[in-house]
Amino acid sequence: MITQNVHALLDALYTLGKLSEGGVYRPVYSEPWQMAHRQVAEWMAQCGLRVRADAVGNLIGRIDGSVDGPVVATGSHIDTVRGGGRLDGALGVVGGLIALSTLRSQHGQPRLPLELIVTCEEEGSRFTNNFWGSLSIVGEADEKQANQHHDVDGVTIAQAMRQIQLDPARIAQAARSDIGWFLEMHIEQGAVLEQKQLDLGIVTAITGLTHFRVTVTGRADHAGTTPMQIRNDALTGAAAMILAIEHAARALGAPAVATVGRISVEPGQANVVPSSVLFSIDARHPDRSQQLQLCADIRSELYRIADERALGIHIEQLTEHPPVPMAPEIIHAVQAAAEELGVSHQQMPSGAGHDAQIMARRCKAGMLFVPSIGGRSHTPAEDTAPAALERGIQVLTGALYRLAY
Amino acid sequence: MITQNVHALLDALYTLGKLSEGGVYRPVYSEPWQMAHRQVAEWMAQCGLRVRADAVGNLIGRIDGSVDGPVVATGSHIDTVRGGGRLDGALGVVGGLIALSTLRSQHGQPRLPLELIVTCEEEGSRFTNNFWGSLSIVGEADEKQANQHHDVDGVTIAQAMRQIQLDPARIAQAARSDIGWFLEMHIEQGAVLEQKQLDLGIVTAITGLTHFRVTVTGRADHAGTTPMQIRNDALTGAAAMILAIEHAARALGAPAVATVGRISVEPGQANVVPSSVLFSIDARHPDRSQQLQLCADIRSELYRIADERALGIHIEQLTEHPPVPMAPEIIHAVQAAAEELGVSHQQMPSGAGHDAQIMARRCKAGMLFVPSIGGRSHTPAEDTAPAALERGIQVLTGALYRLAY
Repeated sequence: MITQNVHALLDALYTLGKLSEGGVYRPVYSEPWQMAHRQVAEWMAQCGLRVRADAVGNLIGRIDGSVDGPVVATGSHIDTVRGGGRLDGALGVVGGLIALSTLRSQHGQPRLPLELIVTCEEEGSRFTNNFWGSLSIVGEADEKQANQHHDVDGVTIAQAMRQIQLDPARIAQAARSDIGWFLEMHIEQGAVLEQKQLDLGIVTAITGLTHFRVTVTGRADHAGTTPMQIRNDALTGAAAMILAIEHAARALGAPAVATVGRISVEPGQANVVPSSVLFSIDARHPDRSQQLQLCADIRSELYRIADERALGIHIEQLTEHPPVPMAPEIIHAVQAAAEELGVSHQQMPSGAGHDAQIMARRCKAGMLFVPSIGGRSHTPAEDTAPAALERGIQVLTGALYRLAY
Repeated sequence: MITQNVHALLDALYTLGKLSEGGVYRPVYSEPWQMAHRQVAEWMAQCGLRVRADAVGNLIGRIDGSVDGPVVATGSHIDTVRGGGRLDGALGVVGGLIALSTLRSQHGQPRLPLELIVTCEEEGSRFTNNFWGSLSIVGEADEKQANQHHDVDGVTIAQAMRQIQLDPARIAQAARSDIGWFLEMHIEQGAVLEQKQLDLGIVTAITGLTHFRVTVTGRADHAGTTPMQIRNDALTGAAAMILAIEHAARALGAPAVATVGRISVEPGQANVVPSSVLFSIDARHPDRSQQLQLCADIRSELYRIADERALGIHIEQLTEHPPVPMAPEIIHAVQAAAEELGVSHQQMPSGAGHDAQIMARRCKAGMLFVPSIGGRSHTPAEDTAPAALERGIQVLTGALYRLAY
């Protein structure tokens, strides 16, 4: 039966939304996304799960428990970025399916209900928001948002929902208060496990994230006629700031990270001293006080450099997400399962965002990572060693057993 | 008579090609440029100069000498950058006109012929080249180039010439071998004279200029999941290089200058570690050995940083212009005139390029600068104190007298 073979399932999903230029693209509510949704629903049914879709299109497969207690849930998403790989999201869906199927056939009915939840639009695959499915589950999505957010063609979430017979007026019905635990399996999307030659990461927290937009203002001058001493060069100032940002993260030590990914310069001519520079900062730390420290260190360095170089500076904080700690109960369940199975592992933060951080608002949430070869993700090159994938699913199965039986 | 008042002449020229958004734009061969050309021709005639245009549209006003010796020429350009100011180019034209007019009325016929040469397309105001007029005079322009270079609408120099009844087949006829001296008056376009409170700069050399395009290659990684220690961030590497370029020019000391004016980054997303960065370098020094030293220092620092950070680097030299020394005979003539008139002055290099550097290939060339308020140029804010302008023209007149009478 195909539903016993993780690789066959992943390969089957990877054919849905395949792009001619490489990789896959399953934007939420699109035809490829619906095909994947139907495919997973079919597999769920084959595995003996009771299948339903909720009001926003989250897909839910359920095994009832012997008592009417809170649900033990697992899952991830099947929407993808454009040019995405075989594992991001899909692994948590397929891994959860195999885990529930295995538990049901080996141990029969659980004490608590078990669910596989396939969320929609985790990535921001199509619309100008992300976590749409999990936000609906925790009761933080509504019709107003569905009318606000749109895709590149101007189609709103609400319009796209109606096109596939989902009623935006019913969004609130997706909200759940009966979920007790949510454990998401995912690829690491980094190279920490690979470098340490470990097969499993147990996520302690989803990192805190702060985005800044920085404007540095100097004075445009002729590149030939203006001595170095009398310049107010916005770009040399920004360069010093970029190095200071790198240094701030290094000085605080791992897992602090800080990245400048965008930069633009005015007037942008080879023979004119730059008058202004705009750049982004992405700063992350899974510990709240350290997150604040990192941002404070960066800010004070930037002001110091601007002052030293007589430049204007404007630091705008665009977003600030505090870290989301994972539930100790889930961390212990995963750890115990890994130890029992002899799977090499370590605790680690997640540097990327996941549905689990949204689910954590209403239930105990946790995550487990399998290694990413070369740390690659959001690319067709995204991969994990087959054996590590299988061991990860065994640990997921063991952890769910501990929680639900 | 208007032609005695430098300010009235400059104001009159500044109305031709005036932009609604501020500043002036007189691209070569355009209607505003032709209007300015006709206006200056009219003034020349009023001042008793014999007027002609050459095969490419350089405008020449002449006073014959009593002997048939080499020509003593002055002049500059009337084409402008978009949004240009009142003085760049125009001052050398108007100043030369007043100087020749004054010499003729006060001293009568010179021994050697005197010419005011108004060059066309010094700035690269319209086409993908610059110095078109002066290159024609020194015999280094031809029909092939006229067919090659084009404006933003794809119109070639040759097509634009034909539109105003200039024959590209006749370009070679603009070449001259009878010019002995060329002395160009210009605004400094920097703030050195202003800072030293001097009224005049006597140019010793036009600076050597090297342009590089640098590509730094790292590896794109997830900004959240990739620890600082295992990144190959092309932008932090480029930032270190930009500071090293600044340091190289400062360490060599004035008048060395080095500028990074353009930078672009791939993939340019806030949450992705940059995989590659492209930036420009503009490095200048008026002494040839120091120019080479500056470029060597920059190159070795860039390779060192790339190596230190395990980044790829490709340094492409786009252009290299060695410095052009000005003729000692002209430097002395200007200096003597300035001293006689009691005008405060210093010798200095020109950090910008000028027609004089092209003319220097065939004759003795020199330049004199008047101060630029705030060092501004290529902007409507471009200005010089009226008294300094007038003193500059007096020195130009005195220097031309020394050469031609």
